Amino acid sequence: MAGLDLSVIGKKSKESVFKYTWTDVVLYALGIGAQADELSFVYENARGGLKVFPSFATIVGRGALIYPGGIDRSRYVHGEQFIRLYQPFPSSGEILSEGEITHIHDKGKGAVIHTKVSGYNKAGDPIFDAKWVHFYIGGGGFGGDPGPKTEFLNPPEGKAPDFSISYKTNSNQAAIYRLNGDFNPLHLDPEFAKKGGQERPILHGLCTYGIANRAIIYGACEGDVTRLKEFQARFSNVVYPGETITTEGWKENGRYIIQARTERVLVLNNAYAIVE
Amino acid sequence: MAGLDLSVIGKKSKESVFKYTWTDVVLYALGIGAQADELSFVYENARGGLKVFPSFATIVGRGALIYPGGIDRSRYVHGEQFIRLYQPFPSSGEILSEGEITHIHDKGKGAVIHTKVSGYNKAGDPIFDAKWVHFYIGGGGFGGDPGPKTEFLNPPEGKAPDFSISYKTNSNQAAIYRLNGDFNPLHLDPEFAKKGGQERPILHGLCTYGIANRAIIYGACEGDVTRLKEFQARFSNVVYPGETITTEGWKENGRYIIQARTERVLVLNNAYAIVE
Repeated sequence: MAGLDLSVIGKKSKESVFKYTWTDVVLYALGIGAQADELSFVYENARGGLKVFPSFATIVGRGALIYPGGIDRSRYVHGEQFIRLYQPFPSSGEILSEGEITHIHDKGKGAVIHTKVSGYNKAGDPIFDAKWVHFYIGGGGFGGDPGPKTEFLNPPEGKAPDFSISYKTNSNQAAIYRLNGDFNPLHLDPEFAKKGGQERPILHGLCTYGIANRAIIYGACEGDVTRLKEFQARFSNVVYPGETITTEGWKENGRYIIQARTERVLVLNNAYAIVE
Repeated sequence: MAGLDLSVIGKKSKESVFKYTWTDVVLYALGIGAQADELSFVYENARGGLKVFPSFATIVGRGALIYPGGIDRSRYVHGEQFIRLYQPFPSSGEILSEGEITHIHDKGKGAVIHTKVSGYNKAGDPIFDAKWVHFYIGGGGFGGDPGPKTEFLNPPEGKAPDFSISYKTNSNQAAIYRLNGDFNPLHLDPEFAKKGGQERPILHGLCTYGIANRAIIYGACEGDVTRLKEFQARFSNVVYPGETITTEGWKENGRYIIQARTERVLVLNNAYAIVE
């Protein structure tokens, strides 16, 4: 098995331009399950103006992602996602993004690739930072730095969450979400999903992430998108469209410990949100 | 109350150009409630190619609609819809449309306006004809032709339908459907809907029409869009997002008599489909 090309570390992507209108904002909100009464997020003439869920950063920044050359994409798995917000997204506009692979850690069997993306407006003001963490199955063992040990974030034992919000996804949730630009057939094509080892098509990890983000906005930010500063989560299991995602948060030391689960399993763990 | 400007009859619209990609086709299918397993309509790489529901004509042809000058749009109500298909829509492309108000009938209290739209490809081959029938409340009494009496199409008494298909709409169905281009706030904004005399936002009539069209494709055409030649329906009541629409068809004299109803009321009547 050919090793990862480590020379990619530190190289910057080309500047990626994401131009969008209010319909893209609304399509994203509907893709993460927003309902008709969430007018601030689905109605262009909402009182106070159309608002954008912060996790929209994962759509805006996609174009600046860098992948090591020669990888087998089927073994390149999205493991974690982080966003930091500097200011809210305008309801339409143009965002520039730049990406960089900052670290590739050698975990023995696999490699862990950290890709940072920064988004800013045309005046150069920062809008967001985001980090995609991918796990490359079978890509470790190249004698590299194993990186720091993961510090696990667990909810406090025996304490009820400060918020708990359940959203049932629609059975066509992935079909809607993918119109935001992630057309991987794994999320729609049953044959393709079976070849990838899934019993049926799975929801996009970033759709789950967006649904949890939506829950945090209501559960911890009183619906005010400007209050969410950071959201980090690890993808611990897949979600099938149609399942219900329950997102819970425990306030602790100036942040919320976050977990999300379906009827079957924990789907986001080792997660936190910083809310102001 | 100022009368309708009758000089508009027979004037043709400018040629309207509708350019679309597969994402527009899929968004339309999702807007009329298509599910993830309806791969032919929601997946760009479906076996046999992506197919387009014939009622997409109502999206394609909208740009060629003509309205009489000086009307009060809140009293200009969509009453009936007709489509005739000459060939299936390609999964992406460019369709040209031309519209014309062919008749304005004087029904005493109201006026009935017939607008025909024809769609064709760049080679000039016809793709569809469509007819929008609007009722202009309070717009009659100008001494005009009352037009022919409506011939009612009723299902045969006491006979079970040849097909019956129920689709539950999502509570955000109108929010999705409107991304196809009909942004009338009546379908999303509760205050606007109340001002318009509705207790809450209503589904687009053409969304209901599309949902019935989808049922006809499965119930009468074995999923084959090329078999549907005509579909005519009258909007008899409003649908609220979240309601279930049951579409039924009775085969009779070479066509299907069609009806659609929700849990509450009949929503499409005086309807037929021609299937080959």
